[in-house]
Amino acid sequence: MKTASAPFTHYSPAWARKTLAELRELVGFASISTAPGAAGAVRACAEWLARHLRGLGLEGVRVFRTPGHPIVYAEKTGLPGRPTLLIYGHYDVQPVEPAAAWTVPPFGGLVRGPRLYGRGASDDKGQFFVHLKALELLLAQGETLPLNVKILLEGEEEIGSPNLGAFIRAHRRLLRADWALLSDTNLLSAGQPALTYGLRGSLAAELTVTGPPAELHSGVFGGAVLNPLQALTTLLAALHDEHGRVAIPGFYEPVQPAAAAERAYLRRYGPADAQLLREARVARGWGEPGYTLYERTVLRPSLSITGLSGGFQGEGVQSIVPARASAKLSFRLAEGQDPYRVEEQLRAYLRRRTPPQVRATLRAQLHAPPYTVAPALPVMRAAAQAYAHGFGRPPVLQRSGGTIPVVSLLEQHLGIPTVLMGFGLPDDHKHGPDEFLHLPNFWRGIQTSLFFLRRLGQLTSSSCRLCSSSTATATRARATA
Amino acid sequence: MKTASAPFTHYSPAWARKTLAELRELVGFASISTAPGAAGAVRACAEWLARHLRGLGLEGVRVFRTPGHPIVYAEKTGLPGRPTLLIYGHYDVQPVEPAAAWTVPPFGGLVRGPRLYGRGASDDKGQFFVHLKALELLLAQGETLPLNVKILLEGEEEIGSPNLGAFIRAHRRLLRADWALLSDTNLLSAGQPALTYGLRGSLAAELTVTGPPAELHSGVFGGAVLNPLQALTTLLAALHDEHGRVAIPGFYEPVQPAAAAERAYLRRYGPADAQLLREARVARGWGEPGYTLYERTVLRPSLSITGLSGGFQGEGVQSIVPARASAKLSFRLAEGQDPYRVEEQLRAYLRRRTPPQVRATLRAQLHAPPYTVAPALPVMRAAAQAYAHGFGRPPVLQRSGGTIPVVSLLEQHLGIPTVLMGFGLPDDHKHGPDEFLHLPNFWRGIQTSLFFLRRLGQLTSSSCRLCSSSTATATRARATA
Repeated sequence: MKTASAPFTHYSPAWARKTLAELRELVGFASISTAPGAAGAVRACAEWLARHLRGLGLEGVRVFRTPGHPIVYAEKTGLPGRPTLLIYGHYDVQPVEPAAAWTVPPFGGLVRGPRLYGRGASDDKGQFFVHLKALELLLAQGETLPLNVKILLEGEEEIGSPNLGAFIRAHRRLLRADWALLSDTNLLSAGQPALTYGLRGSLAAELTVTGPPAELHSGVFGGAVLNPLQALTTLLAALHDEHGRVAIPGFYEPVQPAAAAERAYLRRYGPADAQLLREARVARGWGEPGYTLYERTVLRPSLSITGLSGGFQGEGVQSIVPARASAKLSFRLAEGQDPYRVEEQLRAYLRRRTPPQVRATLRAQLHAPPYTVAPALPVMRAAAQAYAHGFGRPPVLQRSGGTIPVVSLLEQHLGIPTVLMGFGLPDDHKHGPDEFLHLPNFWRGIQTSLFFLRRLGQLTSSSCRLCSSSTATATRARATA
Repeated sequence: MKTASAPFTHYSPAWARKTLAELRELVGFASISTAPGAAGAVRACAEWLARHLRGLGLEGVRVFRTPGHPIVYAEKTGLPGRPTLLIYGHYDVQPVEPAAAWTVPPFGGLVRGPRLYGRGASDDKGQFFVHLKALELLLAQGETLPLNVKILLEGEEEIGSPNLGAFIRAHRRLLRADWALLSDTNLLSAGQPALTYGLRGSLAAELTVTGPPAELHSGVFGGAVLNPLQALTTLLAALHDEHGRVAIPGFYEPVQPAAAAERAYLRRYGPADAQLLREARVARGWGEPGYTLYERTVLRPSLSITGLSGGFQGEGVQSIVPARASAKLSFRLAEGQDPYRVEEQLRAYLRRRTPPQVRATLRAQLHAPPYTVAPALPVMRAAAQAYAHGFGRPPVLQRSGGTIPVVSLLEQHLGIPTVLMGFGLPDDHKHGPDEFLHLPNFWRGIQTSLFFLRRLGQLTSSSCRLCSSSTATATRARATA
């Protein structure tokens, strides 16, 4: 790539020390969005960020209240005719449980060798901080920014962003942009960047089966009254066929078959079956025939039962026919599937199969459509070039089997594509004990971000609008990626 | 019955008042065997009983330590040639949860109208106290007891009698008797006694399915790794066929078909389908075709899933492929079935059906064989006559779908049949809030017990040994009951 030879942006050792100190401060906030007692720490973190953004020279800085944790906003606009980038990040973090498994203080920001340890160091504080520091370098050098920039920092990502959709809907004009940038994914390995161009969608729902209005004695009624736990397990078992395919009629119908070229690419650059099994620490794979394990997790939809609950769960024996049981279902949806349509199909299937002695109710909890962005889009090409500049080698293109609901929200309400430019490592213990940020990648990330911002500034807004207007159309070309 | 005209045993109003006060004291102990903090109350109740038994003139009174709660023993023997009756009861009680649902103090012994309220008032303190008071009347009147009597009061019935089997085995000589008497079952209704001649057996077990060594992200691995919750639900669903029959090969083979005469009797005197549905508060029955609902619960075996547990059970959504899931299984076994054989059949079935990606382990928690005693036995005839005397009408013969493990232990280790002479009511809230003892039945129970003790004294020990030597043989004649 011709851009690999572009000059690195220089900064002083003092600036690097100051940056590291700031990052340790940021990681020091125990901004655990799930913890009922942590609202104060979450808010303090939001206020710290607002002050920091003002200090960088950003404008319009606000801490928006929500029914939950605050959203921090800032911008530097005023360049008409230039495109606008919306940078999203989340400053809330996972709980530290199991706390005893940590070998370092979870909020100490301890630096040891190339690692900065702390809950949220990689997910997502260290990753979005990359872009703030890139902006700082640009602004401190007296440069006019190469494009308009808006910053949106959320405090509820780890609890499913319950208030983000409403916020984006209500602030469409404020947030208007040409693209979004999100750094909350992984490199392939420490030195090998990866650009994610596809995410599976998600439908999460809870299925509850109720039978008798109260628990019954299993001696007195066992064998004469349908047990809700049995009805539930029978319904759940019927959701897959014996080959590991989802058995709901119509489920696979809208799934777009992947082009041969894309499958070949994924087989070449994606993890092999053996690697996936090693990462999962299981001996044998499972699932839909005709696909590699990686393909099953990124190209094909799946259904996981994520929780089961009913009856007596304590030690020992209780002689009951329980009154109710429930299961949590997590569908991962492939390109072409619509979570609302899958919900309908599931409801129809359950209606047909629920025996008349019990009642089945389904409560949908999350709908996120699948997401694909064409690697051929100018904004994606710019991201690839930026990675090549920052890391010295071009990124691998990858799909992820996970879901990032904000990406769908931005597509739905603002009509823009999101660039998933991650700086995390696959093994940096996000959500686990001893989470860390790999510092060399943090510094490389700043160079990557600087290059990306400058390159985007060279794109005309109209060309971007064109490309963002229909990711679906563009997507069809992606198989050449 | 000729015996209905036998004279009632008279006692003074002062004795009745004293008896009621004693019963309220006994109900006042919060002897909850499951509660970790209640060991003191359980022991205090045992000591109170020991003092009370001594006060009645019983001998050899001892409070035996066990690894759990104590066992109280007493006897009045010394009548060689006369038969011996072992009276079993349990002085431990269920927890009071949900405590807020009680409208009276659970350990206050409040008397209102014909009811004495309190946890354990019916189950089982008030029921075994019937026999202590009958003995007191006999002993206080200077009578020589009509037969040898031994008393065994357990403090762990509500937690599955974990130490009773070992105790009985270790004290076979001390406990040697011709019959056992247990009052922990129900009348058909307040005025209609019922003599239970059959109990279903029980096999309780916990099935655990494990997959990956730790939870996995369902986005990253969903569709490529077999989910233990799915494997478990598929295994559980396969335990029944589509007609509601247990699908384990060989399961029904040893079940003795009931004689036409017995089925006719049960249909006439047992609850009709409509009544059973009303009691369960469900609109529709379920289960093995070809049998009434009552027959399904007493003549036929059944399998209930009593608990399900696995993965994320909190509010909201967690994106995981869980590492393990488990289910509690409660088999009720019919005449002819052996819990150990059923366990083997289940293990073989699970071995064949568990997919190679996961591991299924089964932990058996309770083995209790089914129990039947021939209503034609002299001891059962005596019980029927006693009921007729105490309640003014002969008992209905009934089978119960429940299991009383002590009955099997007594049969197994002492080789004796147990008479199930219950004084509870079907709706006296055993195990629920506002449990009560129906006092008129308590007083009728004392008359019933007095008659029974005297009548047993007229049987010769040898005739009893004969009848108890083979309940199995005798059982075959029962269909004429």
